Amino acid sequence: MDRLKTLKIVKIGGNVIDDFQELTSFLTVFSLIKGPKILVHGGGKSATALANQMGLEVQMIEGRRITNAATLELITMVYAGKINKTIVAQLQALNCNALGFSGADGNSIISEKRPISTIDYGFVGDVKHVETSTLELLLEQGLSPVFCAITHDANGQLLNTNADTIASELAIAFSSQYKVELYYCFEKKGVLKDINDEDSVIQAITQSSYKELLDAQLIFSGMLPKLNNCFHALDHKVSKVCIGRPEMLLNSEAIFTTLTIQ
Amino acid sequence: MDRLKTLKIVKIGGNVIDDFQELTSFLTVFSLIKGPKILVHGGGKSATALANQMGLEVQMIEGRRITNAATLELITMVYAGKINKTIVAQLQALNCNALGFSGADGNSIISEKRPISTIDYGFVGDVKHVETSTLELLLEQGLSPVFCAITHDANGQLLNTNADTIASELAIAFSSQYKVELYYCFEKKGVLKDINDEDSVIQAITQSSYKELLDAQLIFSGMLPKLNNCFHALDHKVSKVCIGRPEMLLNSEAIFTTLTIQ
Repeated sequence: MDRLKTLKIVKIGGNVIDDFQELTSFLTVFSLIKGPKILVHGGGKSATALANQMGLEVQMIEGRRITNAATLELITMVYAGKINKTIVAQLQALNCNALGFSGADGNSIISEKRPISTIDYGFVGDVKHVETSTLELLLEQGLSPVFCAITHDANGQLLNTNADTIASELAIAFSSQYKVELYYCFEKKGVLKDINDEDSVIQAITQSSYKELLDAQLIFSGMLPKLNNCFHALDHKVSKVCIGRPEMLLNSEAIFTTLTIQ
Repeated sequence: MDRLKTLKIVKIGGNVIDDFQELTSFLTVFSLIKGPKILVHGGGKSATALANQMGLEVQMIEGRRITNAATLELITMVYAGKINKTIVAQLQALNCNALGFSGADGNSIISEKRPISTIDYGFVGDVKHVETSTLELLLEQGLSPVFCAITHDANGQLLNTNADTIASELAIAFSSQYKVELYYCFEKKGVLKDINDEDSVIQAITQSSYKELLDAQLIFSGMLPKLNNCFHALDHKVSKVCIGRPEMLLNSEAIFTTLTIQ
């Protein structure tokens, strides 16, 4: 396992994207990472702002946003157009040879439209297959793929897919060729014991300590799907998953949460 | 020269993009082209439609559209987002392994913001350098790059660039590695002797016959920049340039205009 090269997959969320200064400082950090790396970005608030400007209604069912055809078109414009190209151009200026991807590009992420059960989520896709060949070729040439949260069904339909999931599915798919480290950058320093105390970061979580934290009800409910996603990746040979502020990528003394199997 | 592989570069304009049926039929034709190929697409009317919907004013000076910051953001969303990803997803469904590009992606097309003379065109870029290495790597793996009409200045600024120019600059840049054929698909059968007669296609134009047509004022003024662009490419080792309907790409009996040096 240790003879494999390390691949770093970094996911940034809306809070980093919405703040120009925060984004620039993150991209500077990302550009300095050595070795193969992939960036996955979420959407941020500009999709909602544009929807309002266009007079598009956001369709919600049971508190969940529904991706109808107009919303899909809108997020394709914002995620794959505006945000993705802004990030790629900025990384180029930082001498990081970035190349933007949706899952349709290079047929890299094929997903399946979520089946209609009680809720019809619309054009939302669950990842079915990640094709690593083209991505690996580019990584080996020193290029850095930059993924937006859009995939396709291989039949011509683009689909909205959760960015956290894209990051973990990419991590899992590459785990046979690389030692994969998955980084989720967000606004907090890590998983907190006390949601109101930024200094209560739990620095190490293993599968067994995670169960203890769950039993003691010490995991904030909003964190649950994220952590389940992380352990899903660790269960599939991803070497470690880190959660915290972007500083964790470069500063060895930064405090953040590292998840490992044991 | 003949020992080189043929690379086909195909440019489609707004009229093909705006009509879903026309686009689908073009993409079917494109997917059937054998060997290395690159697609370059223009914008179409959806950028204007979106500008209206968003209440953005189109800034015109002396009859020319000016790319201010809001317009650049808009065309980045429409060209690199909506149109580019729709085309890529459709090509994937046709078993053509497409990969979307702006000039920022893979640092492939670096341009220079047009200097302000009498008119300040805003964020418009003139092509300075085409970097073929990543594109060639992808072409050799059977992937087809799909370019939108956006480039970058390598300092973080995206720039609006004419799609015809992108196609011809790509053609010129590849002409040392490939025998390059450049195809401009538009709504007419080719260069017409009589603008009102679709059957008056001039099937072959050489540099010397072009001069004769110009002297006889037989070239429709709207055609002039396009043809100058074509001869610029031919002057730089592009093997031939064809102008006509998309059918010319597959049907050997189709009537269209072929431009060659002699």
